[in-house]
Amino acid sequence: MTALRVNGPRLWDSLMDLATLGATPKGGVCRLALTDLDRQARDRVGAWLREAGCKVEVDGVGNMFAIRPGRDAKAPPVLTGSHIDTQPSGGKFDGNYGVLAGLEVIRTLNDAGVATGKPVGVAIWTNEEGSRFVPVMGGSGAFAGVFPVAEILAQRDVAGTAFGDALAAIGYQGELPVGGRPLDAYFEAHIEQGPILEREARAIGLVTGVLGLRWYDCAWTGQDAHAGPTPMPARRDALRGAARLVEAVHALALRSAPDGRGTVGFVQVAPNSRNVVPGHVRMSVDLRHPDDAALAAMDAELRSAAAAIASELGLECEVREVASFASCRFDAGCVEQVRAAAKAFGYSHLEIVSGAGHDAVYVARVAPTAMVFIPCKDGISHNELESARPEHVEAGANVLLHAVLARAGVSADRR
Amino acid sequence: MTALRVNGPRLWDSLMDLATLGATPKGGVCRLALTDLDRQARDRVGAWLREAGCKVEVDGVGNMFAIRPGRDAKAPPVLTGSHIDTQPSGGKFDGNYGVLAGLEVIRTLNDAGVATGKPVGVAIWTNEEGSRFVPVMGGSGAFAGVFPVAEILAQRDVAGTAFGDALAAIGYQGELPVGGRPLDAYFEAHIEQGPILEREARAIGLVTGVLGLRWYDCAWTGQDAHAGPTPMPARRDALRGAARLVEAVHALALRSAPDGRGTVGFVQVAPNSRNVVPGHVRMSVDLRHPDDAALAAMDAELRSAAAAIASELGLECEVREVASFASCRFDAGCVEQVRAAAKAFGYSHLEIVSGAGHDAVYVARVAPTAMVFIPCKDGISHNELESARPEHVEAGANVLLHAVLARAGVSADRR
Repeated sequence: MTALRVNGPRLWDSLMDLATLGATPKGGVCRLALTDLDRQARDRVGAWLREAGCKVEVDGVGNMFAIRPGRDAKAPPVLTGSHIDTQPSGGKFDGNYGVLAGLEVIRTLNDAGVATGKPVGVAIWTNEEGSRFVPVMGGSGAFAGVFPVAEILAQRDVAGTAFGDALAAIGYQGELPVGGRPLDAYFEAHIEQGPILEREARAIGLVTGVLGLRWYDCAWTGQDAHAGPTPMPARRDALRGAARLVEAVHALALRSAPDGRGTVGFVQVAPNSRNVVPGHVRMSVDLRHPDDAALAAMDAELRSAAAAIASELGLECEVREVASFASCRFDAGCVEQVRAAAKAFGYSHLEIVSGAGHDAVYVARVAPTAMVFIPCKDGISHNELESARPEHVEAGANVLLHAVLARAGVSADRR
Repeated sequence: MTALRVNGPRLWDSLMDLATLGATPKGGVCRLALTDLDRQARDRVGAWLREAGCKVEVDGVGNMFAIRPGRDAKAPPVLTGSHIDTQPSGGKFDGNYGVLAGLEVIRTLNDAGVATGKPVGVAIWTNEEGSRFVPVMGGSGAFAGVFPVAEILAQRDVAGTAFGDALAAIGYQGELPVGGRPLDAYFEAHIEQGPILEREARAIGLVTGVLGLRWYDCAWTGQDAHAGPTPMPARRDALRGAARLVEAVHALALRSAPDGRGTVGFVQVAPNSRNVVPGHVRMSVDLRHPDDAALAAMDAELRSAAAAIASELGLECEVREVASFASCRFDAGCVEQVRAAAKAFGYSHLEIVSGAGHDAVYVARVAPTAMVFIPCKDGISHNELESARPEHVEAGANVLLHAVLARAGVSADRR
């Protein structure tokens, strides 16, 4: 069966075709969750999956499931998939690759006339990015029972639109119950979104788990004051608190080397006028670590740094955790199936811990799960410059195909 | 003539009335230059000035001049005034006080039937705040020949609207040529916008000059990257550069104590998403000092700090000066007229250097000029909490009245 290979150029063409929906001038994609562009992408990929013989169903938070029947119609499916929403300045590959690699697996099975023992499917999870609605990975989280469906539907974007209303408006609030669906296994292919595979010159990453994550909103309060007449010692400059915390977050992540991460990605200054000492600053903090105890220690360091800075500068600082997930170790059996497939093709590979969250983190709570990474150019993602090489795109899909086949069971019989 | 006093409650009522246009929930005012609220305020104050017997004319950048005739119709006027645009979260007094104190001077002269030798007037300068359009103090600067009129009209706000189009839309692009108008003198009353008068318990500040100022736009460039998978040492985080420069600006201003000022009031992060390492940050820097050589030294320190930070963090930083004015010493004769008026009323007073820029800085280039400061609560300005006490509001207007009379020449004859 190692002779069975995906059609790399066909997969590449599908990626480029899907990337036209929301295409940006610099070659990226802006296709936020539950916008009309998201609807167009769902319509297009759904049509491709139906043409490939799948039955496509949608659940109550918009997750889509396309299933190719197996010989055992009652067996839980071996699922692949990912998401097709993007960051505001996102790329062509993040998420889209996992969904279209799943489609390519189905097409390849069809072309070769392969019947699998268990059904094989492709999932499109809603709102993985969390750019428009929190929480991030909301669709897969609801599927895994992490978030109540009502809570997901009630979330609002910055314009005040509710998730549920946006979902209904694009026609993707489906009949299927959310979750409670048994899966044989879940395999998700994805670009690495980091520099390690490229630096180590490996084609395939065997993803053994995902960093735990905590997200915070920090609010600094000082006192607005005119930039000219207010002597330096008389100021309560909220931006100085925020600036020091940016450095403190970097320092505490460095102390948790090599796997700790600390990022301030969002800052909002008020009143944000060049001749006013800022009285208020809001900022995000993102902490990650593969070890939950180490992550808890980073949390304590963050809170202690914020309190010390606030005290020294005469400011107030509120640190509020707004999202988190524990670190995740993937299923050893599934990881071994990925390894065996990579070895069978002779692809260079290494074990890797994902720094990014993925739908697989939540699906792993309800099914044996693993991920397949491929390199992306300069490790860049969440950026219009995000890029991947066609040979890696093909290699990752071949590994996905054979991990799925190992799990689903194959007969050489033509259907 | 020291018996002649303004009507304090009437002046206070005018201030409160004008403050209803753009009133904010916390008791401040948001009335950005050349918005419809600015038009409503111009209409209202213009009507008051006409009712007080003034001829009101408007120049090509929207500066308004209301003149009460003197016995010598051809003499250049003794002008008072300020501005009625505000910061986005501004107060009731900044600018508005100088304009309405000028109106109160006119009303007081009318009530007492006083004819002055020279005409007496009130100017309303366009876009002093610089919040919507740069440069700050654009109207008075154009009047003084500092900025070409075409340059002012071509400035655009963040929404892309041109100054000239916004001015025409509110109907205040007047026929009067910009500048070239001889003035006998210019007196501007203003809240201090700093804590010194209140701390020293003085009613009146005799403003001898204004701190020199330089404004910069700084642009940091690093590399957007996903917050999870990108190891800390592999990052080029533009926000770290900005954060360090915030601290460097504060430090260099502290080294120029007690009169040096350094402020970062504006920060814009891109893409400003919580799970993306920021690749770009724009920030303002505002440096001030009463000594031009010391200000030049602060400029050099800023550029050297930015270059050192950029080099250490592997970032690029462009530091661009976008506005400046040299420190300013007001006319000794005009300052003495303010001092004599304060003494005549027995008001406590001290000499003070303004930390804020004012229209008087530019008008001083074309006419003998001085300013009258009154205390404001806690030194707070550019803030909805900005406040001043009625007795100080009245005292400042009395000083303004008598400085104007000393310059304009008085006869006891009823007109």
